[in-house]
This record gives sequence, C-alpha cells and structure tokens, in this order.
Amino acid sequence: MVELNVNLENTSYKIHIGTAWSDSLAGMIERAKVGTKGLVITDSNVYEFYGRQIIDVIKSAGVSAETYVIPAGEESKSAETAIAIYTKAIKLGLDRKSPIIALGGGVVGDLAGFIAATYLRGVPFIQIPTTLLAQVDSSVGGKVAINHPLGKNLIGAFYQPQFVFIDTAFLNTLPEREVSTGLAEVIKYGVIADADFFNYLTHTSDSILTRHDKAFTKIIKRSCEIKAEVVGADERETGLRAILNFGHTIAHGVEAFTKYKKYNHGEAVAIGMHGAAVISQKLGLCSIEVVEKIKHIITEFKLPLKAKDCPADAIFPILFRDKKVINGTINWVLVNNIGNVSIVNNVPLEIIKEALNEIT
Amino acid sequence: MVELNVNLENTSYKIHIGTAWSDSLAGMIERAKVGTKGLVITDSNVYEFYGRQIIDVIKSAGVSAETYVIPAGEESKSAETAIAIYTKAIKLGLDRKSPIIALGGGVVGDLAGFIAATYLRGVPFIQIPTTLLAQVDSSVGGKVAINHPLGKNLIGAFYQPQFVFIDTAFLNTLPEREVSTGLAEVIKYGVIADADFFNYLTHTSDSILTRHDKAFTKIIKRSCEIKAEVVGADERETGLRAILNFGHTIAHGVEAFTKYKKYNHGEAVAIGMHGAAVISQKLGLCSIEVVEKIKHIITEFKLPLKAKDCPADAIFPILFRDKKVINGTINWVLVNNIGNVSIVNNVPLEIIKEALNEIT
Repeated sequence: MVELNVNLENTSYKIHIGTAWSDSLAGMIERAKVGTKGLVITDSNVYEFYGRQIIDVIKSAGVSAETYVIPAGEESKSAETAIAIYTKAIKLGLDRKSPIIALGGGVVGDLAGFIAATYLRGVPFIQIPTTLLAQVDSSVGGKVAINHPLGKNLIGAFYQPQFVFIDTAFLNTLPEREVSTGLAEVIKYGVIADADFFNYLTHTSDSILTRHDKAFTKIIKRSCEIKAEVVGADERETGLRAILNFGHTIAHGVEAFTKYKKYNHGEAVAIGMHGAAVISQKLGLCSIEVVEKIKHIITEFKLPLKAKDCPADAIFPILFRDKKVINGTINWVLVNNIGNVSIVNNVPLEIIKEALNEIT
Repeated sequence: MVELNVNLENTSYKIHIGTAWSDSLAGMIERAKVGTKGLVITDSNVYEFYGRQIIDVIKSAGVSAETYVIPAGEESKSAETAIAIYTKAIKLGLDRKSPIIALGGGVVGDLAGFIAATYLRGVPFIQIPTTLLAQVDSSVGGKVAINHPLGKNLIGAFYQPQFVFIDTAFLNTLPEREVSTGLAEVIKYGVIADADFFNYLTHTSDSILTRHDKAFTKIIKRSCEIKAEVVGADERETGLRAILNFGHTIAHGVEAFTKYKKYNHGEAVAIGMHGAAVISQKLGLCSIEVVEKIKHIITEFKLPLKAKDCPADAIFPILFRDKKVINGTINWVLVNNIGNVSIVNNVPLEIIKEALNEIT
C-alpha cells in the first residue's frame, strides 16, 4: 500500500494505491466524514465487473449509495446525461455533504467530477479509477468536464476529490489496448520529469506488459507523484502545468481528425509525443538519440508512432483550434533531454508541417 | 466614486461604485488584461436601455464584444440557455482569456457567471449589475448558478469576478417594485451586522425611496461592504456565511409555494425576516421592540409582512427541502438585537408553526 499527498493551495488530498484491497475503501470513506447518502456513478462495463463489490463496501462505511450506470463510452459525457444525473441526485434528496463517487475510467471520472463540482455548487467527490489511464492521469489533478457537441471537455471546472482510491486489481480485466493507452501517459511522465523512471520503463517493459503487480504499483505511484507535483505547483494551468501537455497538441489534432474513433487517447498521445520529439530535434533542442529512445519505448508498449491515414495538411489547421491556444499561439512542450522539457511558443510553421509529414 | 475590496483566500477583486460613470468601465477592462474577444450576456429589457452604450464602452477598451440577449425572466436561467451560450462562445472562438460580461440583474449575473465558471474550465468574468438587488446582493460573493426543472440554483459554482462595476444611474429606469425588492436585502444587512446602518435606513427612507444618488450610493456601498466581509471570512458557505440567509429560509418556502410568481425575491425575504424575527422573539432571543423595528422598516420600504395566501401547513414541509438543510436540520438565522444574529439549529417545530401562522 502506498499513499501520496497532493498539496494544493486551498486543499490537499491523498491518493491511496494498493492491490486487491477494496475493503480498505470503507475506512477511508468513514474518515472523509461525508453524508449518509451518496451516489455512485459508473459505466455498464465496470458495473458488471466491480459494481456490487464496491457498492457493498461503500454501504459498509455507512453511506447508503445509489448507483447511476451510464452506457460505457465518450457519448455519455454529455449535458443530457449530466442533467439526468442531477435529476436523480435531487430526487434522492442528496445534500451538500452527500458524496458523488466515480467508479470507472476517464469518462466516468470527468462526468462524475463535473456533477460533484456543480450540484448544489459543489459536494464531496471520491475518485475510484478503474483503468490505467484514469489511475495515472485523469483521476489526479482535478480537471473535470463534459463534452459539448462542438468539442470535447469544453464545459468543465477544476474540482478536487476528497481522495483517490486506486486498486491495481481492477486492471486485471482491462483489455490489452486499454493498458497500452495508459502507458502512453506513463511514458510522458518519464520524458517530462524523470530520466530514471524513463529508463526503468525501458528495462521493465516485459513485467509491465504482463501486469506484474509490483511493476504496476511502481509506475502508477511514480506517475501520480509527478502529476501531483506539477498540479500542486500550478492547479489552474496558468504555467508549469502546461508540461503535462507533452504530446497532446498533435494528439488532439489526430483525435479530432479521426473523430475520436480510430485512435484512443493514449495512441494519439504516442503519435503526438513522437511528433513533438521530431520538432524538438529539428529545432536542435535534442539529439536524434532522444528521439530514438522515445520511439523505442512507444513501440515497446505497443503504441503507434504514426497516424498513417491522417494527411499532415488536414491535421495542421486543427492544431490551432485547441482550447489551450491563446490568441492563435500554440505553446509547444518540447524535449531537451529525457526528463527535461521546455515550453516553446514560436515554432516555425514549416517545422511543424515537416514533423507532421514524418508522423503521418 | 467608491471602491471596495473583496478579499478572498485565493483571489481578491474590487467593487467600483459610482453614478452615471459608465465610461470609466473602459479603463477597468483595460487594466484587467483580458483577451481581445469577449461575450456580453444581457437580457431583452436591459439591452434596450443600456446595451449599445455599454457595448460601445467595452469596444473602446479594445475588446470586440459580441452580445447574447436572453429573454428577461427566471426561465432563461436554464441548462438549455447555457448550452446555447456555450455554442455561441465556441463559434466565436472565445479562449481562456476571453471575458464573459454580465450586464443585467440577478438572472443574467447568475447565468453568465455559471458560463464563465465552466466554459473551458473557467474564463474571466466581469459583473455589471443593473438592478438594486443585483448591486447589493447577487453580484457580490461569487455564487453563480442555473436552475434545474426541479428547483432553483441547484446547478452552480462559487466563481469570483475580475471586478464588479456598479453604476447607480442604471437604477433610474428600475420599476418601484424592483427597488423595494433590493431594499429587502439592504434591511437584512442592517439586521445581521450594523445597527447604525439599520437606523440610517429608518431615518433616510424618504431619500432612499426617491432614489437620491447620495443615499443610494451609501446603501449600496455599506451593503456590499457587509457582504464582502462575510464572504471574505467564509467564501464557500461552511460557517459564518450562513448569516446572509437571514429571512431566506421562510422566503424560499414562500417562493416555492407560490411558484416564484406572486412574490419577488425581496418581498419573500421581507416576509421571511418578519417570520425569523417572530421566532427569535418567541424563543426569548430578542425583545418585541426589535420585531417592531423590523416590521416598521419593511413596511416603510413598501414590502409585505405577510404571505396571506400561503397556508402555514403548506409552507412548513417546504422549509425542510431547502438546499441548506443538512441531514434534515434547518440552521435558522435568528436575531438577538438589531445588528446581531445567531445560528440556531434546534428551534422547536411548534415555534416554527406558530410563527408561520402569524405571517401567513
């Protein structure tokens, strides 16, 4: 069992990481001193595997939790679903102490977090991420959101949970492609902040891919640590937090062009990290060896290097529609060396186009 | 011209109060260093009187502001309207620096504030309240919200503006009943925090009702000061801030029973303050003279003392459905003396019923 602190200006909370220890959740809920009624938001897949087990634990903590099961998939992160959940919360008589508990991956966490942030102007929120991607990324940092028909995550807030409960046992039922998508973000943490961790990933890739508990616990812990440090320094994304977007500028372009269907998030981030590394090398910020190391680990983790079906000319203009673009300027996260990145906002357009050509 | 500071844990901002000085808004917008594109949210009434004038000033500050005009009235504070406004914001390409500017009363401020709090996880927000109620109450304190079909303000956030710009000249076009509704909250500030201010209201009621600029500026300033102090001590309503609910428990019951049609907010608050005073006196917390003083100023300001058409038996259960009720307990704000209140959560149900009988 591992505990991490996320220290923010106004609040701090713990991330608890362990293996096959869901019973321990009960004590944490008791210590959070939430109300006696709550709502678990989960999706149809997770509910089938873990729903009853977790709800029983929550009930044993004295919280009579009802469940709202959304259809699995991005389509559920909509205003319509949010309103249906508010309706359920109101009808259940949930008050300002009633916890909203997210049991699932990123879609469930983002949606449930948005409900928690806005129902009665904010109620306690508990994150129980069940995918690797959610455990290492979306459940940490307080970004919550729903989608608008014109774009993903356009309606949201920064809202922190009471605590995050991670059980690596949830990952046993995860399809292989879902493990890989989480690993893309894990690679990212190595590149932006920790060369030793990056080397560990390279040397331990076999254990990681076969889901050894010890290796999984280590990569989840270190990923959460790095994210917690960055978020602790810049909760509302006004500066440093931007480094977490390494690989994400091009990723968002690839995702938008393929309508979020062909590549999942981690796959798009892998392509985007490759692209960012190529830009870095073309600008002389890093050596060709750094690019090769990044390409190697991406391939090792069964992630794609190229978006072959996405013409560079089509991706290019989409890059400028990202919600992090301000006054038409893209803040690129570029790599100087493994473990060290910089924000660069004056990358020549030609270099961007050349890099896009190499990765599509 | 008067300037007040609202000092909060993470942020602080200014309330600027003046008369017929809308041109000064330009400099404040420039100093706020917001983006060059923005969105003004206003309602059909306000737009007719002040829309062009204010939009011209905003443009002179270098912000090319588009306008979204909602139909005047509570019905506009809906999720549907919010989504239509997000759509407009996205189509305009508004980014994280783009200001959302509320020009109007409480409905406009609450709705625009909710958009500002949630569009792209939060963009700059500027409050230009145009009613007395909004100037002394809803524009200060950061409570923003939209309504759910099952209840008012159930979806919202705490989100602070960059600054609040108050021009008393806006009040010249306000119907008399709208002035009175604002005065109910002004009375409240006297009762909860300042006996001298309460006496000033009693002695100056003629100048106030005839809208003398000097009297208006004074009551707006002192009301905002008191609210800013309370909010500064308890931004997220976990303790002290509850005193701002003086009169509001019964008010919400009366408003809900009459479906927000027969009484406007201030009228319901006047009835509720009367009720709270009666409860206080029955519990021996205050003298009958205090009740009489409160009744006198309510009547003086052309506000009702009783909700004659609302049976006490019907109002009583509604009191327990308020969103401030936690685990079935109502935190009553009761008066000890003018300028001094307490929170009491164990008022005997019989006393509540007796008081309701007196004020209905």
